[in-house]
Amino acid sequence: MDYQESDFNLTNYLNDKKELINSELDKIFKDFASSSHIVTAMKYSLMAGGKRIRPILCLAATEAVGGNLESTLPASCALEMIHTYSLIHDDLPAMDDDELRRGKQTCHVAFDEATAILAGDALLTLAFQILSSPVNKKDSQALVLLNVIHVISIAAGYKGMIDGQMRDIISEGALLSLDDLENMHALKTGALIQASIRCGAVLGNGSQEQIKLLGIYAKNLGLAFQVTDDILNVVGNPAVMGKAVGTDINRKKSTYPLIMGLNESKEFAKNIINNALKAIELFDNKAEPLRAVARYILKRKK
Amino acid sequence: MDYQESDFNLTNYLNDKKELINSELDKIFKDFASSSHIVTAMKYSLMAGGKRIRPILCLAATEAVGGNLESTLPASCALEMIHTYSLIHDDLPAMDDDELRRGKQTCHVAFDEATAILAGDALLTLAFQILSSPVNKKDSQALVLLNVIHVISIAAGYKGMIDGQMRDIISEGALLSLDDLENMHALKTGALIQASIRCGAVLGNGSQEQIKLLGIYAKNLGLAFQVTDDILNVVGNPAVMGKAVGTDINRKKSTYPLIMGLNESKEFAKNIINNALKAIELFDNKAEPLRAVARYILKRKK
Repeated sequence: MDYQESDFNLTNYLNDKKELINSELDKIFKDFASSSHIVTAMKYSLMAGGKRIRPILCLAATEAVGGNLESTLPASCALEMIHTYSLIHDDLPAMDDDELRRGKQTCHVAFDEATAILAGDALLTLAFQILSSPVNKKDSQALVLLNVIHVISIAAGYKGMIDGQMRDIISEGALLSLDDLENMHALKTGALIQASIRCGAVLGNGSQEQIKLLGIYAKNLGLAFQVTDDILNVVGNPAVMGKAVGTDINRKKSTYPLIMGLNESKEFAKNIINNALKAIELFDNKAEPLRAVARYILKRKK
Repeated sequence: MDYQESDFNLTNYLNDKKELINSELDKIFKDFASSSHIVTAMKYSLMAGGKRIRPILCLAATEAVGGNLESTLPASCALEMIHTYSLIHDDLPAMDDDELRRGKQTCHVAFDEATAILAGDALLTLAFQILSSPVNKKDSQALVLLNVIHVISIAAGYKGMIDGQMRDIISEGALLSLDDLENMHALKTGALIQASIRCGAVLGNGSQEQIKLLGIYAKNLGLAFQVTDDILNVVGNPAVMGKAVGTDINRKKSTYPLIMGLNESKEFAKNIINNALKAIELFDNKAEPLRAVARYILKRKK
């Protein structure tokens, strides 16, 4: 797991990790040996072709501190379950009312609303079942796992992701100040991204200093991801992105290009990615995947 | 905490414990120092006057094995949060579509559907935050707490409470067999009641034998609770119960009186309460609250 910038291939890395995560998720669902209605709906959304960004960042953080991927893999799957549950609930008619996600019907369309609500609930609950699972329960690891559960529950909770979604709904149609926009995103998507990286570092036995620096990296990365998302919604190519552009303007959504201007948004994204890279500049080559992800965010077309 | 049957006053006991739990819940919400929209909705439903049966059973199980209530109190509050989240989601229009609960507007009526979905999500997540909270994190306790989180997440999850609710929705209008009815209730309400008692015993450092016997008690108690609930829906006094009776028949719900007959249901309830009492007959007087709860279930009028 020693990487050189020159020969580091991010596409291969992302594909390898995605495969690792998907096969672990498959294994978890196979262990269930259940084909109940609720499990069918959970699997439908969990295996709907997500990019696995959060679990990959979690694994990459473990690598960056020189840790062992095996002890991080279940937690990374739990993070993807929490992400998926939040998408299922956000897509509901009472929330964003979306019928398609990644070209597939959303859970409440493919099944029904009641099933979608319960499938989301069940994925959130399953995440904590996985995190507290006996296979992980070596005595010395128990306190670390309890810490990880605490970090994730705070990030996903009423002061993190859920508050972000609540603010997003409440502010619909209103033009936010730059501060409010940043706060909303920091909660809605930033909190779980930060938690993913922190948990990867903690499970990899990173030092306090490493965990702190990765926290700065994570904060800037999460923000940059949102800013470039907003930019792509203005200038992206629908054919490449596989989804419509211009939807934010149509929905009167507060975005970075709208509030600070398109060129200023691009400059801003560049600056915060530099902050992310600077935070981990003293890490060795094992942090190359995290650096490559950060650089990629500026160049991404989808 | 030594009780004698002759002078044991269940009403006082339930009131004392309820006060203890409510003041701990108040403390948890005060520590939040947050008055966000989502927290207001969470508090609204959590403090809407619940009977606190699950946390009380959890505390009583700790007492029954001679344990210390202090280390069980946070977990008992977490159990009530999980129970409340399940009620908020079950009441949603896409599920049971109930507008009133305990004489108050349900969460989605008092606020709106999006807020209710998120408030439920947030209470479920908060439960795991409380269970993994630093105040509980003595090294020796970490493995116990991880075990408790695992037991609760399984009971509340896709093979427990959530599957029960799913089956209840799917089977609406169909007459269930006695086996299917029992399975559905064992999942929908039984699983979390059993987990409450198990966690109380585990946190109170009960022996494996004690935990096993309390498991038998819990299984029978949960079932008896449901049977008597169905009976009251036929023969209860609406003025005493504070809610309508005869609603199960109107909704064509499968119930014990409908499937096995009213008198047979009463006999059945008596038998399973006897099983519950028999399981803990060798426990000393510290189990008197659990015995009194079991006896009360047969006599309850609401």
